[in-house]
Amino acid sequence: MGGDVGSVPLEATTCAEAVYETIMRRRDVRAEFTGEPIPSVILHRLLSAAHAAPSVGLSQPWDFVVITSTETRESFKDHVSAERRVFAASLPAARAAQFAPLKVEGIMEASVGIVVTYDPTRAAPAVLGRHAIADAGLYSTCLAIENLWLAATVEGYGVGWVSFYREPFLQHLVGLPDHVRPVAWLCVGPVSCLQEVPDLERHQWRTRRPVEEAIHLDHW
Amino acid sequence: MGGDVGSVPLEATTCAEAVYETIMRRRDVRAEFTGEPIPSVILHRLLSAAHAAPSVGLSQPWDFVVITSTETRESFKDHVSAERRVFAASLPAARAAQFAPLKVEGIMEASVGIVVTYDPTRAAPAVLGRHAIADAGLYSTCLAIENLWLAATVEGYGVGWVSFYREPFLQHLVGLPDHVRPVAWLCVGPVSCLQEVPDLERHQWRTRRPVEEAIHLDHW
Repeated sequence: MGGDVGSVPLEATTCAEAVYETIMRRRDVRAEFTGEPIPSVILHRLLSAAHAAPSVGLSQPWDFVVITSTETRESFKDHVSAERRVFAASLPAARAAQFAPLKVEGIMEASVGIVVTYDPTRAAPAVLGRHAIADAGLYSTCLAIENLWLAATVEGYGVGWVSFYREPFLQHLVGLPDHVRPVAWLCVGPVSCLQEVPDLERHQWRTRRPVEEAIHLDHW
Repeated sequence: MGGDVGSVPLEATTCAEAVYETIMRRRDVRAEFTGEPIPSVILHRLLSAAHAAPSVGLSQPWDFVVITSTETRESFKDHVSAERRVFAASLPAARAAQFAPLKVEGIMEASVGIVVTYDPTRAAPAVLGRHAIADAGLYSTCLAIENLWLAATVEGYGVGWVSFYREPFLQHLVGLPDHVRPVAWLCVGPVSCLQEVPDLERHQWRTRRPVEEAIHLDHW
């Protein structure tokens, strides 16, 4: 193996603290975007971080459509507003009242939108590690999204994942080929601040679960 | 909002470098596990990092089953070996020859296995942000996995995602309730080194795509 072997351990404490701090500081942003432009060098860093994610069979099945067009964003925002009403109408009265003040997107306020997509034909037909689990490529795409999210956080940017949409609408809006599936619309850009407590917890929609409840030993 | 507002920007350059370096250094590990035990404080840090991931509607739909049992690991390894043969048998001869030397798991050599699961009933029925996209909860679970992966990397550990398995087998093996879906078996632990080049590229299975090819402006 020789020359292409990297060396662990890392520079320890400070690197580790930086990574953990970024993971804990990351928020799902709706209201705090400033709309300032993203320098192209930073946008490229964010997308390169996403692109460095692990992927099943090294398929790298993601693409990134960077949305700056006001017209595209307005169309998407209108669609999201309609889906918001669909969701609100499904709620019992008390829950609907809790939902009413919640902001679910910062589509127009963020500097850009980034539509992250999944292409199941990338590296096909024999994607190593996907024969038994069809969704494995979709999973890879999500790993790329988290990389982008953490990179944005450490740049002092916010990211907000908008999921109040129907996939065919977004697919058509940004001209995706039929076989390419949209996985996320991310609102990305500089923010005035990052909240310490998630919006949905601050607004009493839901409280976080202690990590201990999520850990099992050897058996569920 | 007042007192619960965090402040950006971060301590800039060094934090950012640490995060980007970790993202780039991260590898999908098969062959380099040392098997040394993971101190419980570090295991807890890794799982806390995973648990700090964003999730649709703050549903936190993941759980983590930490596998130390030799018996469970052997059963899983046997199953994975069988699935490896299934995949190999599906390949044309030239591709099968390239696949033959590739190691696809470090189940017995890693310090622990971590089975990451998805529970669609968490926060249901009205999961905010999931009414239009059923898979959004599954996506959240993957974000948690990438957090764990990066935390492990900065600890000097390796992670290897094994996906040569059938979900019902793993579900039964670790006693998951019927409605809980396994998303990953992660091999986790100290490593002798992290490779600089992904295994599948070093072994000529597949080369990485330039990030530029993955970026589109406003339209696919």
